[in-house]
Amino acid sequence: MKKKIAVLSGDGIGPEVVAQAIKVLNAIAGKYNHTFEYTEALAGAIAIDVTGNPMPDETLKVCLESDAILFGAIGDPKYDNDPNAKVRPEQGLLKIRKEMGLFCNIRPVTTYDSLIDKSPLKEDRIKGADLVVYRELTGGIYFGEKGRKNNDTTAYDNCEYSVIEIERIAKPAFEAARARRKKLTLVDKANVLETSRLWRDVVKKMASEYPDVEVDYLFVDNAAMQMIVNPVQFDVILTENMFGDIISDEASVITGSLGLLASASMGAKTAMFEPCHGSYPQAAGKNVANPVAAILSAAMMLDHFQLFDEANCIRKAVKKSIDEGIATVDINNQNPKNTSTVGDYIAKFV
Amino acid sequence: MKKKIAVLSGDGIGPEVVAQAIKVLNAIAGKYNHTFEYTEALAGAIAIDVTGNPMPDETLKVCLESDAILFGAIGDPKYDNDPNAKVRPEQGLLKIRKEMGLFCNIRPVTTYDSLIDKSPLKEDRIKGADLVVYRELTGGIYFGEKGRKNNDTTAYDNCEYSVIEIERIAKPAFEAARARRKKLTLVDKANVLETSRLWRDVVKKMASEYPDVEVDYLFVDNAAMQMIVNPVQFDVILTENMFGDIISDEASVITGSLGLLASASMGAKTAMFEPCHGSYPQAAGKNVANPVAAILSAAMMLDHFQLFDEANCIRKAVKKSIDEGIATVDINNQNPKNTSTVGDYIAKFV
Ligand SMILES: CC(C)[C@H](C(=O)O)[C@@H](O)C(=O)O
Ligand SMILES: CC(C)[C@H](C(=O)O)[C@@H](O)C(=O)O
Repeated sequence: MKKKIAVLSGDGIGPEVVAQAIKVLNAIAGKYNHTFEYTEALAGAIAIDVTGNPMPDETLKVCLESDAILFGAIGDPKYDNDPNAKVRPEQGLLKIRKEMGLFCNIRPVTTYDSLIDKSPLKEDRIKGADLVVYRELTGGIYFGEKGRKNNDTTAYDNCEYSVIEIERIAKPAFEAARARRKKLTLVDKANVLETSRLWRDVVKKMASEYPDVEVDYLFVDNAAMQMIVNPVQFDVILTENMFGDIISDEASVITGSLGLLASASMGAKTAMFEPCHGSYPQAAGKNVANPVAAILSAAMMLDHFQLFDEANCIRKAVKKSIDEGIATVDINNQNPKNTSTVGDYIAKFV
Repeated sequence: MKKKIAVLSGDGIGPEVVAQAIKVLNAIAGKYNHTFEYTEALAGAIAIDVTGNPMPDETLKVCLESDAILFGAIGDPKYDNDPNAKVRPEQGLLKIRKEMGLFCNIRPVTTYDSLIDKSPLKEDRIKGADLVVYRELTGGIYFGEKGRKNNDTTAYDNCEYSVIEIERIAKPAFEAARARRKKLTLVDKANVLETSRLWRDVVKKMASEYPDVEVDYLFVDNAAMQMIVNPVQFDVILTENMFGDIISDEASVITGSLGLLASASMGAKTAMFEPCHGSYPQAAGKNVANPVAAILSAAMMLDHFQLFDEANCIRKAVKKSIDEGIATVDINNQNPKNTSTVGDYIAKFV
């Protein structure tokens, strides 16, 4: 099989971890006789530095011509805490989501028994947690009309959702629940928000097409509590953009291994695969960042290409590396390995 | 001193826990020679059952004529999961907040060393956590224009904030930080939302008037993570209505003792004091609910009356009850005491 992959390494630790993911993809290509063609393109702070634009048209073009996008991370402290900065790296992320129609963000959160001691939660709370968040990614308050009025003394952000926007993400979420433990939890704020009431209406209607899936409705404030008190109860969580941002980040730390979490953003035109950890600028260039999230994102990409054996081969190699303690400092502070050492090990095991 | 107190016991366990708070207030009145005059009024599901309105005008009138409101809880499962129900108990809560101008919700979260084993977090994460959330309570997406359009296929909720709305809650938050550990964290989403950028602008400007207070800015997704990973870092958290709903509920479970958490909602016309735990219908009428949150809410009310010795007397009695194990099942499952037994003990110790 031949696939074209756009590589947007971005900022901070992005380039280092993406390099390991490519190393592993190349090992897969060799073993299974595939051809992966990579095209690098600029995104984020680095793209601002070079072109003045966090998501240049040239980059979007490369993405559109590819079968999938491998993404590193975006964000640099020099653009933080300046709410009035005209251009911010994050805008690049929002732009690529919108332009590529990446409406369905998928974040699996699993616990590794051997890493349970890393969790901030007590073992009896976290053990066995295995959930996936389906977050709507191109609508809601993120992309609604926003601005100032009354001489700049009032600001507003509008949140909007249509039935179609809800249906098209609810469908893959229901399908995922069906293929997993058959439970779907809609997280919303239907006791306050009209958009949430529309989400509930639509999901309730769709639920009848999935009689084998148990559907739960949880207010977002309660969900934020349940994620700590009893995360094991969750299977598939479905939610809108802003709540998904908060809940999926919350979910990402309960296992204590943020450095292992991958994500996929599926869209109409293409799909993007990205580690959850962000640009982590303090560690950039030090060869200490955990490459596993990027490597597992590459595995999700292979699933997307229907290369399931290949994806599972990566997952097996990752598990092996963790069990053997071939891991970066966030996971193994006794005897930490470098980013590239972990990448080499996983590629070799593949 | 003579004070008029409106008592809105509401639904679920509300009446039982409020009864204990009144018992303790009466003990204080006796000891310190004050007169507290209580006027009961209907609110919530019970008010819907009796009057069809979750917050009858008569109740609002009673509140307006009082020096403070002691509130139990609102909510009944028979109104849940029906997004199209025309009248919902929660509307009563939103209405009283708006009508009484209760713009400043204050929720202290403290850990009791003797209860640390109840926390879902590991001891090294939670030990010493001591924070307070200042949540804006009468603005934002809760009260913005909302509705449907395009033949009901699109729903919208508008979020709006003005400089004045932000300033009037930022001020008490800064004052609180000054009186505490001198750190204020603004939680927002300034990398995406225009309203958040206005919050940052306003808070940044005000920060110069409080040079002794260290000001931190945290995106809400990051805050949701930090609350689990490192809650000890927080002192005063300041945030808008929707983020405050999520973050304060998240904060309320990290100590493992939601049944102990009190809140105050301060306003232009009056102030309301309320346990954080909600109506907890499963426990209603069973005399098992923890009355401490309601009792500590009464203590916050005494602070509001400037009766600091009296308030601290209650806090001391509560601490004593916990240390002695005179506690309900959520805290003491070895040898649990009844709601009223705990109330009696604390009242007697006062
Ligand atoms: C960087 C930011 C705009 C983005 C978001 O809020 O969606 C990030 O937090 C994420 O979750 O990918
Ligand atoms: C009941 C609901 C409307 C309310 C809110 O969202 O404000 C509650 O969750 C709270 O925090 O007091």
